[in-house]
Amino acid sequence: MSDKMNKNRVFNFSAGPSILPLNVLEDVQGELVCYKESGQSVMEMSHRSKEFDKIIKEAESDLRELMNIPENYKVMFIQGGGTLQFSMVALNFMYKNHKADYVITGSWAKKAMKEAARYGDVKAVASSEEDVFTYIPKVDKSMVREDADYLYICYNNTIYGTHYNYIPDVDIPIIADMSSCILSEEIDVSRFGAIIAGAQKNIGPAGVTIAIVREDLIGHAHPMTPVYLDYKTHSENDSLYNTPPCFAIYVAGLVFKDLVAKGGLSAKQKANEEKASKLYNYLDSSKLFSCPVAKEDRSIMNVVFVTGDKELDKKFIEAAKSHGLINLGGHRSIGGMRASIYNAMPEEGVDRLIAFMQEFEKANA
Amino acid sequence: MSDKMNKNRVFNFSAGPSILPLNVLEDVQGELVCYKESGQSVMEMSHRSKEFDKIIKEAESDLRELMNIPENYKVMFIQGGGTLQFSMVALNFMYKNHKADYVITGSWAKKAMKEAARYGDVKAVASSEEDVFTYIPKVDKSMVREDADYLYICYNNTIYGTHYNYIPDVDIPIIADMSSCILSEEIDVSRFGAIIAGAQKNIGPAGVTIAIVREDLIGHAHPMTPVYLDYKTHSENDSLYNTPPCFAIYVAGLVFKDLVAKGGLSAKQKANEEKASKLYNYLDSSKLFSCPVAKEDRSIMNVVFVTGDKELDKKFIEAAKSHGLINLGGHRSIGGMRASIYNAMPEEGVDRLIAFMQEFEKANA
Repeated sequence: MSDKMNKNRVFNFSAGPSILPLNVLEDVQGELVCYKESGQSVMEMSHRSKEFDKIIKEAESDLRELMNIPENYKVMFIQGGGTLQFSMVALNFMYKNHKADYVITGSWAKKAMKEAARYGDVKAVASSEEDVFTYIPKVDKSMVREDADYLYICYNNTIYGTHYNYIPDVDIPIIADMSSCILSEEIDVSRFGAIIAGAQKNIGPAGVTIAIVREDLIGHAHPMTPVYLDYKTHSENDSLYNTPPCFAIYVAGLVFKDLVAKGGLSAKQKANEEKASKLYNYLDSSKLFSCPVAKEDRSIMNVVFVTGDKELDKKFIEAAKSHGLINLGGHRSIGGMRASIYNAMPEEGVDRLIAFMQEFEKANA
Repeated sequence: MSDKMNKNRVFNFSAGPSILPLNVLEDVQGELVCYKESGQSVMEMSHRSKEFDKIIKEAESDLRELMNIPENYKVMFIQGGGTLQFSMVALNFMYKNHKADYVITGSWAKKAMKEAARYGDVKAVASSEEDVFTYIPKVDKSMVREDADYLYICYNNTIYGTHYNYIPDVDIPIIADMSSCILSEEIDVSRFGAIIAGAQKNIGPAGVTIAIVREDLIGHAHPMTPVYLDYKTHSENDSLYNTPPCFAIYVAGLVFKDLVAKGGLSAKQKANEEKASKLYNYLDSSKLFSCPVAKEDRSIMNVVFVTGDKELDKKFIEAAKSHGLINLGGHRSIGGMRASIYNAMPEEGVDRLIAFMQEFEKANA
């Protein structure tokens, strides 16, 4: 990677939008003005054209291959981000008893529940808020309402650096927000009612969101549901009810192809675990830095850490920036540091970060 | 233009997504992997970064300058396309008497009204459907309900090639869909309550929609409104409530800068009128081709025409394609031909089209 890395490129630890594979960016650049033999940019291409039809169909089939998505699940490309999904989940899936259970593991799960509260009876069945979201609660059948329409979880918590190390064993559909961990590991899709994920971490540019929904859950939307927010609208029209975010889907498709070519999710998971282990091992051995997250619940995508001194945190973030290690600040709501080491972050980026942290630790001992 | 036009590039008459200025595409290509001094692609850039803040703020201020948008109007960049706007318009603006009046000038106005019917009492106060939408009805105060919350119009009808040559003189806010004519001509924004426009015609790539809304109309959304569909959410957060479609906004911003540099909307309107006149003049003189649209209501963006023989229409579309003149088929709902000659279509494209039509006419006389 190192020799291919453009000299001017930084190591970007942003939580999202975030780093994309350099070879994908170079491919996009190469065909930006003229896509293959089409004589047009993908940005200029009719969404009803043969060229775009191929792009979106291949994106879907590559994603299906990567995630081993069962046939009874629909794959949709939707605009509006996670925020729109919070509403769509509630408007579409809370249809039997108008009840839904939520596990509160951070700000995004809270926002999702707040949005659902407009449309039915929601309950926080577990929460790690008292401990500043530093762990993932263990949820089992006994905690979930039998007549709830679904159990909602945020599978990886971007802000707090936590990740489910289990899939709750419940009898109602699990709806999972996987925005910051999708494609980072192998997942048994069949254990979920629906998986939603914004693209801007592991998939592609912001502006497209993936929804993977079990077919039987589609078609029961609340009568007040705006047409764009009904999963049926998108599933029945293969994500082409109206003009989709074509360019974002095209880039996502290239990322999928790149992952397939590089051995799929098992290979990627292994690489991600290695990158994360290096960083966590250093953090656990450091006398300056520490990770507040329970060991068994640590995310391999978002690594949160602190020095314990807010001024020193700031100093570190600024100093790292001047070394080409950027966006290491924690979320504005909690401060501290966060290194988002998504799929596209090369191991070299993590090595450089650790080396710089060691240097900084020595200088600030 | 001709010498700058890449040899492999076609003339793309697509109704949207559609042709973009070649110099803008080349600029995007140049900085695709590394945006200025940032060391990242715009696709990888945090939406909270200084770099992106500058991009979105300049996009807004350039748009304000171009359209001379009064200070009491908010400008928002929203995902979801016109379809989501149809719902947002109804959920946000039908708040006083839950009544709204619509002028039916084509499929999009019908869809907008259908969506609003979920949330209140809607009325089609005028329609040109009986005449296959070949003209724009004249709407005046006497036709509009005094207690309607707004009058909705589709200012340019992409499918039927019609365009309002007047702004209705009514006492309630006018909400106008300007997706296919925004930035093509000078407009008195202060005559409207809100203007909405998908980007994928004159603005940039699909995936971002512009909403220009008079401030006093914001903040009254129906209590069932999903948070993403409340204009207040976007206006209070300068379009950064959640991750916006950063790359699409960036390209739109470059298109705005390009328009400013080339003399703004008065210069662009003049050029557009000249291009359209050439094509309509030829159509009106042709013995083979004709334009079904009432002369006074013709769009300068979407030029609809037919031969009167469906087989010959098909033959023409195919033959044109082989001459590098693509996407000349009419909308799948009505057939025939349509040349969308948006801002970015160079005069040379129109000249080539006319020359080819003349050739085709001679060969099929």
